[in-house]
Amino acid sequence: MKPRIAMVIGDPAGIGSELVARLLGGTDARSKADILLVADRDEIEEGMRIAGTRFDYRLVNDPAKAEFAAGVPLLFDFSGRGARPYARAESTANGGRYSLDTLERSIDLTVAGVTEAVCFAPLNKHSMHQGGLAHNDETHWFAEKLRPEGAFGELNVLDRLWTSRVTSHVALRDVADLITAEGVADAIDLISRTLRQAGYASPRIAVCGLNPHNGDNGSFGREEIDVIAPGVALAASRGVPANGPFPADTIFLKAQAGEVDAIVTMYHDQGQIAMKLMGFSRGVTVHGGLPIPITTPAHGTAFDIHGKGKANVGAMQQAFDLACAMAVSRRQVTR
Amino acid sequence: MKPRIAMVIGDPAGIGSELVARLLGGTDARSKADILLVADRDEIEEGMRIAGTRFDYRLVNDPAKAEFAAGVPLLFDFSGRGARPYARAESTANGGRYSLDTLERSIDLTVAGVTEAVCFAPLNKHSMHQGGLAHNDETHWFAEKLRPEGAFGELNVLDRLWTSRVTSHVALRDVADLITAEGVADAIDLISRTLRQAGYASPRIAVCGLNPHNGDNGSFGREEIDVIAPGVALAASRGVPANGPFPADTIFLKAQAGEVDAIVTMYHDQGQIAMKLMGFSRGVTVHGGLPIPITTPAHGTAFDIHGKGKANVGAMQQAFDLACAMAVSRRQVTR
Repeated sequence: MKPRIAMVIGDPAGIGSELVARLLGGTDARSKADILLVADRDEIEEGMRIAGTRFDYRLVNDPAKAEFAAGVPLLFDFSGRGARPYARAESTANGGRYSLDTLERSIDLTVAGVTEAVCFAPLNKHSMHQGGLAHNDETHWFAEKLRPEGAFGELNVLDRLWTSRVTSHVALRDVADLITAEGVADAIDLISRTLRQAGYASPRIAVCGLNPHNGDNGSFGREEIDVIAPGVALAASRGVPANGPFPADTIFLKAQAGEVDAIVTMYHDQGQIAMKLMGFSRGVTVHGGLPIPITTPAHGTAFDIHGKGKANVGAMQQAFDLACAMAVSRRQVTR
Repeated sequence: MKPRIAMVIGDPAGIGSELVARLLGGTDARSKADILLVADRDEIEEGMRIAGTRFDYRLVNDPAKAEFAAGVPLLFDFSGRGARPYARAESTANGGRYSLDTLERSIDLTVAGVTEAVCFAPLNKHSMHQGGLAHNDETHWFAEKLRPEGAFGELNVLDRLWTSRVTSHVALRDVADLITAEGVADAIDLISRTLRQAGYASPRIAVCGLNPHNGDNGSFGREEIDVIAPGVALAASRGVPANGPFPADTIFLKAQAGEVDAIVTMYHDQGQIAMKLMGFSRGVTVHGGLPIPITTPAHGTAFDIHGKGKANVGAMQQAFDLACAMAVSRRQVTR
């Protein structure tokens, strides 16, 4: 049985409708999965116009009773508190409310088992905050809704390489004090669980150091010795093996050579400098640690090219493929 | 007139003799420059044996009176305080003394105008310290010998991209406090002068921020606003233009696209993660800010592959080419 994927266009001011249309305009995605679009019908039509493509869909009034038909996406014409006309190329409360409500409905349908994973086109944080999001970001909103049991957080995926981070949007001067053995172990555990959810039986996980050349045996920085290695050991004691710490400026070369599946980084740019260089246009964000798979392109709404018909579907395709893979793996785990 | 380059093999325990033999075994380097080898003759012969190549050379007794002949390197058979047999694949005081003395003689000959630039194969810091180097690294030794007027330091070069850093081998937790507007301006000045020395009339220099997403307008870190932008302005006030700060996780994409010549980074891994991913085997280190051009491959002595005949000459070739280019540019500047 094909994976059943709920999809939304994200912020209507951005390139989301074009990406969804471009993805479903080809036959690959439609043949790979049963798709339920939770979207304003006019937005889907607009996306097809922008992308210069068309696909057939079938309207459903009650998505909870959706019956999938091969190759034809279902469309639940739904806008939540969003209302036409949507602003274009800017963040608005209306766009934010639309994004939040369509996404929430997709998550609810997935929790209910109608669909098995959620794949969403890019959101805009400012729109969502204007539209009523009370959390710092969507990850924490998902977590409040879905009540994960362990650590949760964003993972970045590029082709076959996964990364997680111990700290994220914090000042670089605060990074060292925010890294704890517990935090390192949690990050290892999160990425390990998510990789297994994505079908990796024994994920090969490498952990970065913090300082140049891993601190050169304590010559410039002791976190590798005092915090990170103990964090790796703590994860191992919980049954989650990983290797490291490794110097951050060479570990990505090993990843590029296919020697590891995942890298746990200590701070934002340690991973993002590498991931963006290795393939900016193909990166995917997975919201890991949640009871359902949720994926999205790593790039943003790209307001500046809304409506221009030149959005690159690469990352959306990868996000969709990953949602499918995780949906199928999850069946095997939960059955 | 061809550039005149002084060359040494670096640490005799590493791959230096093989690299020099491999470089000079081809016709490209020998036709491009007049070369003076300052080396133990037996080491040059051993390098040729390891590399499986041969080139003719002419022995000179007094290098100060060297007369160059097209295509035939001169060899000043010199070992300083080094003595055969040299240890292989390990750091020793004897290897360190050999490295220091051959390098020092090359520098002296270049200062005297016999040669115009120095290109050296990799050194080993531990050998040099055992062998009597009183400074933290060779850069500071060069500086004491050569008494530069302004800022000096290592620059990394990969193909057409140059990088410098405001901090280097220090703990990540200390980085933020070590960055000052003055330090940023000095790093901009250093790379600008060195690029002009290498033939760039108006180098396009980009400066990195410190925090993720440049601190997002002060939300997580204020160094971009309080220190780095003022540093860029300070450099501009001294007549050295640069742009930035830019978020570190996207600026290297612009560099990859050829939009900038140089990036000033705030800390070691910010630049090294990117540079190593973009081409580990081709990177070059330039000792910038000194009165004579000095270049070397960015990689190390590679003790583990000494004598195996499989050293990659790519970075050595690039280091040599850059020494040649800088020697020629310097003539135009100093005449």
